Amino acid sequence: MEETIAAIATAYGEGGIGIVRISGPKTFEILEKVFIPARSGIINRKLTYGYVEDPKSGQKIDEVLAVFMKEPYTYTKEDVAEIHCHGSMVSLRKTLELVLRQGARMAEPGEFTKRAFLNGRLDLSQAEAVIDLIRAKTDKTFDVALGQLDGQLSQKVIHIRKALLDLLVNVTVNIDYPDEDIEEMTYEELEIEISQINDMIEKLLVTADTGRIIREGLNVAIIGKPNVGKSSLMNELLKETRAIVTDIPGTTRDTIEEVVSIKNIPVRLTDTAGIRKTDDTIEKMGIEKSKKTFNEADLIIFVMDSSREISQEDQEIIQYIGDRRAVVLINKIDLGKSWNREKVETVMPNASVVETSLLKKVGIEEIEQVILDMVYSGEVKQNESLMVTNVRHKELLEKAKDALADARHMTLEREALDFIEVDLKNAYEWLGEIIGETVSDDIINEVFSRFCLGK
Amino acid sequence: MEETIAAIATAYGEGGIGIVRISGPKTFEILEKVFIPARSGIINRKLTYGYVEDPKSGQKIDEVLAVFMKEPYTYTKEDVAEIHCHGSMVSLRKTLELVLRQGARMAEPGEFTKRAFLNGRLDLSQAEAVIDLIRAKTDKTFDVALGQLDGQLSQKVIHIRKALLDLLVNVTVNIDYPDEDIEEMTYEELEIEISQINDMIEKLLVTADTGRIIREGLNVAIIGKPNVGKSSLMNELLKETRAIVTDIPGTTRDTIEEVVSIKNIPVRLTDTAGIRKTDDTIEKMGIEKSKKTFNEADLIIFVMDSSREISQEDQEIIQYIGDRRAVVLINKIDLGKSWNREKVETVMPNASVVETSLLKKVGIEEIEQVILDMVYSGEVKQNESLMVTNVRHKELLEKAKDALADARHMTLEREALDFIEVDLKNAYEWLGEIIGETVSDDIINEVFSRFCLGK
Repeated sequence: MEETIAAIATAYGEGGIGIVRISGPKTFEILEKVFIPARSGIINRKLTYGYVEDPKSGQKIDEVLAVFMKEPYTYTKEDVAEIHCHGSMVSLRKTLELVLRQGARMAEPGEFTKRAFLNGRLDLSQAEAVIDLIRAKTDKTFDVALGQLDGQLSQKVIHIRKALLDLLVNVTVNIDYPDEDIEEMTYEELEIEISQINDMIEKLLVTADTGRIIREGLNVAIIGKPNVGKSSLMNELLKETRAIVTDIPGTTRDTIEEVVSIKNIPVRLTDTAGIRKTDDTIEKMGIEKSKKTFNEADLIIFVMDSSREISQEDQEIIQYIGDRRAVVLINKIDLGKSWNREKVETVMPNASVVETSLLKKVGIEEIEQVILDMVYSGEVKQNESLMVTNVRHKELLEKAKDALADARHMTLEREALDFIEVDLKNAYEWLGEIIGETVSDDIINEVFSRFCLGK
Repeated sequence: MEETIAAIATAYGEGGIGIVRISGPKTFEILEKVFIPARSGIINRKLTYGYVEDPKSGQKIDEVLAVFMKEPYTYTKEDVAEIHCHGSMVSLRKTLELVLRQGARMAEPGEFTKRAFLNGRLDLSQAEAVIDLIRAKTDKTFDVALGQLDGQLSQKVIHIRKALLDLLVNVTVNIDYPDEDIEEMTYEELEIEISQINDMIEKLLVTADTGRIIREGLNVAIIGKPNVGKSSLMNELLKETRAIVTDIPGTTRDTIEEVVSIKNIPVRLTDTAGIRKTDDTIEKMGIEKSKKTFNEADLIIFVMDSSREISQEDQEIIQYIGDRRAVVLINKIDLGKSWNREKVETVMPNASVVETSLLKKVGIEEIEQVILDMVYSGEVKQNESLMVTNVRHKELLEKAKDALADARHMTLEREALDFIEVDLKNAYEWLGEIIGETVSDDIINEVFSRFCLGK
């Protein structure tokens, strides 16, 4: 980390302010070369008005505010500088180029946060929370990530590791000095302690399904015959989100991915129209895509028309859904009742049923509640902010759990302590990977490669 | 301006840093309510680490850096605060909402800069330069706007107004105290002075055509038969721009508007395919659009195929272009020469002719040079940064010029000084509108309504 890095730290596009950020040992030297303060000199942490100027040509690049922040109380724990330009791509590009010409190197995605991690300001799970914060689409996603950045998950993991370490010390002492005058550990005691640690891990793992959905969004596939109300459903659920987003005037929606916020849960809605057999090749490609979405969905919403009799197509869809997690909407209840709750529940006993009239806005609150109940299933509370949201963390917890299961099994079998020690050590190290204590460079690089530039 | 305003000041989207900006008398009070510094208190201009917290619920919104800047040395000349959140729409929205709940009002587009103008930190032409800076697509556009923000245009306008005012004082004295012992002004002298002032205005006006193109971009319509190389041309000209833009990794292009940078001139390219007669109604609509683009273009690039004989369609296009500003590309010169420079110059004497082989990348530099020569026509130098770029300024200069022409005419006719004085006063006021000295609220509102939010 002898190199000084730089990048544009604000979002791409036109804005009032855009920031070029610099971090590393040459930060001050570079800032002094390119920034001409209008009045006073460069003072630690003081946001100072002046100009960015090419020291070679004397050409003025932009009118800016700049700040220098002396290590170690900075984002990276290194010297950091920020140059606040006009939010123009020309100015940001020219300022960045100028900084790079003075000896900084273009930062890789996530490199500022990676340095914060490598310099010990954040552990790995906290560092991972930073990009989750930035990508968050709903308040809940953001809050859970903020809790993780604050160290809620880390503290829990550190707590479990501490218990494991105490146990390991006990086991090791009993192996190395079995004849000395130390407290002997019985297999019964060992088994109880392993179980207690296992319980702590399981308590975390219980949150992982909900956590993943909070972080990555719930994938919902909407299915149903034509004209049953699928697009009305999409529109109704979108409406609320649009209203939230357009609270900030001047913002536009990304229309490619329709992520809506339902009760603060990010939900990715896809209309899987036409999943039936066809001979048309072009249509077939669409169907393949629909099938993939359908198969990977966390939840299926099956919309049917209350006013029409059940058709061959409905039957096919019911078969297709099988026993997957599904919500059945009996729509258009204002137009007639060929279908009702009981009738559907007989055919699809696992599904949740909601009677709606989407056009008259009847039943929308109930749909949202059903989705909410599915996400916060079992022991996970809605106001809980400590959750395992990251698949990497989940897998490591599971590995630690498996190692503990092995250790417990051998304890029950009264195997030699040496074997048990190995499993406990493994569990300890798997947990260490979550916070980055025992982790390879490959994993670190993998984690930060998913970051955006300038963070 | 008793109200305190707030807005998101960075571009919309995911980024490392996003800023909420506050300006007005309640700024400090609001910042103190929502921002909890981690260590020290809030010190003028010191970028301070801490948290944004809802004072009512105690809920933590985000981990931030915040800065308070005491008036008058701020962007608006009012108290200003910036809260630097994670570049997440959730955090920015929540922080902004919290600030608004403490008594700030959502800022209108351009309202920060409007206050900078109303509080006398910038004149109107300087304020207008701010949005030009932000919107700039090429280095040249940016540099000219930066010069305007620096006051290059304002100083020139102030200089001309000063000369006008001196003249006006002389005229007025001669009207009011014709018999006193003051230096009498002859009509000859008056005429000379008016001409000199007129020259200064004309010197500015000469830059207006180039200036408009530098600011708004050159509208280029590409025309030609199918398969002559129109898309190769588009691609070649785009390639360079793409390379520039993708110099900043992680950035994506807006594909709706294809603005390319040719020798630092922003150029808006449109392929006006199929401008010929048709009976198909849908096709007719496309043709209407093509015709509009064609008619409004600053420059037409007519691509023809060097290897094929002139056709009826080529003839129609030549007629259609008439004597408008055009570049003719004789493309595919590697495949044969049914056409050459002389032959085209006979048919279209006003056009510039370039022989190209777009696929083999022959002639591209020449196309760019021809475009460059057209933009910097006559007296406007390429390294000139003082230009009249804004149509509003151009129109006001023209009005001033007209008023001076009237004054000069009356001077030659030896009319009463009172009449001449009125015209000189008018010229003085038209020029004042450029820098915002004599300008109505409507015009001010109109100017700032074109700004982006948060600036």
